[in-house]
Amino acid sequence: METVSTNVAHGGTQGVYKHASKETGTEMTFSVFVPPHAEGAKLPVVWYLSGLTCTHANVTEKGEYRRLCAELGLIFVAPDTSPRGEGVADDAEKAYDFGLGAGFYVDATEAPFAKNYRMWSYVTQALPALVAERFPADMQRQSIMGHSMGGHGALTIGLTFPDRFKAVSAFAPIVAPSQVPWGHKALPGYLGDDKAAWRKHDAVALIEDGAKVDGLLVDQGEADNFLAEQLKPQLLEKACADAGIPLTLRLQPGYDHSYYFISSFMEDHLRWHAERLG
Amino acid sequence: METVSTNVAHGGTQGVYKHASKETGTEMTFSVFVPPHAEGAKLPVVWYLSGLTCTHANVTEKGEYRRLCAELGLIFVAPDTSPRGEGVADDAEKAYDFGLGAGFYVDATEAPFAKNYRMWSYVTQALPALVAERFPADMQRQSIMGHSMGGHGALTIGLTFPDRFKAVSAFAPIVAPSQVPWGHKALPGYLGDDKAAWRKHDAVALIEDGAKVDGLLVDQGEADNFLAEQLKPQLLEKACADAGIPLTLRLQPGYDHSYYFISSFMEDHLRWHAERLG
Repeated sequence: METVSTNVAHGGTQGVYKHASKETGTEMTFSVFVPPHAEGAKLPVVWYLSGLTCTHANVTEKGEYRRLCAELGLIFVAPDTSPRGEGVADDAEKAYDFGLGAGFYVDATEAPFAKNYRMWSYVTQALPALVAERFPADMQRQSIMGHSMGGHGALTIGLTFPDRFKAVSAFAPIVAPSQVPWGHKALPGYLGDDKAAWRKHDAVALIEDGAKVDGLLVDQGEADNFLAEQLKPQLLEKACADAGIPLTLRLQPGYDHSYYFISSFMEDHLRWHAERLG
Repeated sequence: METVSTNVAHGGTQGVYKHASKETGTEMTFSVFVPPHAEGAKLPVVWYLSGLTCTHANVTEKGEYRRLCAELGLIFVAPDTSPRGEGVADDAEKAYDFGLGAGFYVDATEAPFAKNYRMWSYVTQALPALVAERFPADMQRQSIMGHSMGGHGALTIGLTFPDRFKAVSAFAPIVAPSQVPWGHKALPGYLGDDKAAWRKHDAVALIEDGAKVDGLLVDQGEADNFLAEQLKPQLLEKACADAGIPLTLRLQPGYDHSYYFISSFMEDHLRWHAERLG
């Protein structure tokens, strides 16, 4: 692991790091904020998965999480959204919603993406192992959140590993990629045409198939351009109601899909996570 | 005035606007955050002047001021740092510390800069007139802060108009440009070689020449790369002590010159301003 930069912020350290990942076969960059803490202390870890077109940098610069993480004693980890570099496959038309910057947090099975697009294993195994080794992280106390495509990642990973993640929340998540255009493009591209393989990467389908968590917090801007066609939180609402999963879905009037929205509600999410992380 | 973008954030509206400025002879872009407020209410205005290489966008994205401005009921205005556009003179070698992005908040008298580089009049007259006209601003309650070159601007403007600005503060300001390399390049370039003309654009010289304010708040990172050669807060400390101006100078261990530093102490500055804005 190589340190790209560190900056003191809110009494803690905001770092950016890179490492050669065997999982993706590429160099991967990520950011970690470590709040002020006593020597030898182990702190809970909040994972933040970013959305389409983003890297670790967007939330690191615009997410306004450091003040809260310093107050609440939380480590905040932000991975990249896809493998990158020479030789990594991209969308044929360089679209923003597939390929580079759009890994959808799956292990691809389809050529030419299967070689490097292993974001599921990277985010759930490779990077946690590195974080556990190199940071003062209490891996018994982890939680996960994300935005848009990263909200999809947070929900699917949280639903798959309910014992690992004490809290799961999302900002404007894709909740049912099998049922919307972004998913109709990405899921066959990464996973093939057999829709059975898509279900473990679709929060609504996972819940329909029996996945359970103790609760979910979702904020969604009502002025979000992607709301009606791509996000459809009502599908998650119905699935949670049918399955008896307590969902706090908050529709926020006037808010769009940007980091102005995320940063406005980051505090609520981090306090909700901190309560559940103990 | 044309609206470039608006985003709801922390219950208020973060806008970016542009207008054709007669003062600079160019199109100028700036940002304004208007917090939630009652219909017809007029709110105090905090001016934020940015540093070398910046535009309005840096603090708008990374400054973490909106939560506080929403809580305290403050309008936050961030102008650009220089005129821009075709035909605007730049440093011959395109250096970062003179010309575009480096207006130093002066009205240039030297060719070829005198034509467009009128940032003093832009920031103290043209833009305030526009803000007063187009936003719910109480122009009887204004304050000013800035970072680095913008800290220099905030100090010199605040010291020149003590009745207009109820609070003046700075993050890592240039306090005595006449005595440091950045100023040795910029002041003759914009104002000519007569050092008498520099004194009204040098906070320490202004104080030596009798300028007074009720108090100043300055935060300075001790790990700031520019501290020893360019910033020299001890010169401000001595001038304030000699003049009887109450200066709160806080040296912050570990902090650098970046927005990680600014955002960490933005809350303290805004609360300090709000107290003085009433």
